[in-house]
Amino acid sequence: MTATRRTRKASYVSESFRSQGIMKLLHARITRVENGFVEISAKNRTELTQQDGLVHAGVLATLMDSAGGYAVLSLLPPKSRVLAVEFKINFMRPASGDLIRGLGKVKRIGKKIAVCELQATVRKNKAWTSCAWGSQTVYCIRPGDAIG
Amino acid sequence: MTATRRTRKASYVSESFRSQGIMKLLHARITRVENGFVEISAKNRTELTQQDGLVHAGVLATLMDSAGGYAVLSLLPPKSRVLAVEFKINFMRPASGDLIRGLGKVKRIGKKIAVCELQATVRKNKAWTSCAWGSQTVYCIRPGDAIG
Amino acid sequence: MTATRRTRKASYVSESFRSQGIMKLLHARITRVENGFVEISAKNRTELTQQDGLVHAGVLATLMDSAGGYAVLSLLPPKSRVLAVEFKINFMRPASGDLIRGLGKVKRIGKKIAVCELQATVRKNKAWTSCAWGSQTVYCIRPGDAIG
Amino acid sequence: MTATRRTRKASYVSESFRSQGIMKLLHARITRVENGFVEISAKNRTELTQQDGLVHAGVLATLMDSAGGYAVLSLLPPKSRVLAVEFKINFMRPASGDLIRGLGKVKRIGKKIAVCELQATVRKNKAWTSCAWGSQTVYCIRPGDAIG
Repeated sequence: MTATRRTRKASYVSESFRSQGIMKLLHARITRVENGFVEISAKNRTELTQQDGLVHAGVLATLMDSAGGYAVLSLLPPKSRVLAVEFKINFMRPASGDLIRGLGKVKRIGKKIAVCELQATVRKNKAWTSCAWGSQTVYCIRPGDAIG
Repeated sequence: MTATRRTRKASYVSESFRSQGIMKLLHARITRVENGFVEISAKNRTELTQQDGLVHAGVLATLMDSAGGYAVLSLLPPKSRVLAVEFKINFMRPASGDLIRGLGKVKRIGKKIAVCELQATVRKNKAWTSCAWGSQTVYCIRPGDAIG
Repeated sequence: MTATRRTRKASYVSESFRSQGIMKLLHARITRVENGFVEISAKNRTELTQQDGLVHAGVLATLMDSAGGYAVLSLLPPKSRVLAVEFKINFMRPASGDLIRGLGKVKRIGKKIAVCELQATVRKNKAWTSCAWGSQTVYCIRPGDAIG
Repeated sequence: MTATRRTRKASYVSESFRSQGIMKLLHARITRVENGFVEISAKNRTELTQQDGLVHAGVLATLMDSAGGYAVLSLLPPKSRVLAVEFKINFMRPASGDLIRGLGKVKRIGKKIAVCELQATVRKNKAWTSCAWGSQTVYCIRPGDAIG
């Protein structure tokens, strides 16, 4: 893939990302786009917490789900669409720190179905910890496909 | 369970709910608390959407996860705590409408592990549709238990 | 649906079932076929157990997965095929008893993607207990569809 | 860990494995035991198939579930027990070939809850393919623990 095509793809993903109202609400930014891999970052703040002051599991899930969806989109031709079929997330460690990341990596992509590995990490005292890990099924609609 | 005890329990759940920063950010309110069942509601708005204008899967997951956790908490003695071990959600229909609900119902509760059924519904033109459905494992810490 | 069409559908499902080598190995039989619902039964025996003498989680999963797949197939036109995309199962109670059942019920069916609720029950002293519960995504290939 | 302790641990795992009736039925053998990692292998044969002649998803799940459980057990003190809380598996590619493997690797272990990554691979024409991938929650009962 040439640098130009990669840039075009990244900008296509970024454009879609900017249209997600929830990402603005979470102050989330897309911080890495590669082929089949996307990273989304957000500063932690009181507005993202559950009752014990940790980042709410649903916030982690939101960042992870978008990261996975865009990781799939990064491998599809322009004007494709993706839909989350399902995801499953294990919460492995308490999520506390100043910066949160949702990561999505494509493990397998077929004509209609893609599978992603999802992860969430938090930064505390400059060290990153993996606090959630999961899997996601994504339905791919390429231009010209009927909607499933 | 007497009316007094039920009210005390509901107020214990509501108090914890009010301490979740994310629920304020989502403008979510707890609208039903029964033994082993909780409903959380939020008005839909642009801030909750993904790129197609539908409610973001992560927003549904956030409401569902809290509903499940509080459904478990409603069955535990005061000063207990709950932690999400994992959840898995299938997104069955597009989530569009003016009101969103996350529902959690306890299917099984043991000494340490509870299992919940989760659901999300949306109201459109006064009709409710189930748009997401899933399962959740919750770890229960009763007063005096060591933290797992 | 007329009685004739229902019988034809049941016989289509049963025929496919008989071609599953694993069902013979487990001595499993299909004991109920309705539109969108299938039940598979097997006698418990030492050959199906894990180290504590309970039914192995994978045996429950096998019965549940086939039940879900056939529940979907029961709603599709003849010569359709189904593929398991994923399943997730919570094991809620120890599985001990003399008879085991895997149950699959379709919750939602679209053009390509169906979602099933799965359950496993065991009979002990003539009483049935639900020991596992889960969800499954099934990919539907109708006659004439490209394989996804 | 000394070679002696490793051997003792492997023999403890193998002993438990031999008491699983289902592994005999599947002709499965434990082919690798390391700290936090276990591999189980079985020759493919007609008795393990679904209707299209592929290995049944439930057979893969059975090997994967046991591999994960024993991977956790390999990290626990002697006389510990493990229980599957839940697993979720994505079936990524058709499982056909002459040899099947279920792999379990511990990603995180706490006092009560462990999380494993599960995988199934098949060998065809001497090449291995990953056909299923998933996650598992395991409940750990160390000697002296109350049963959860």
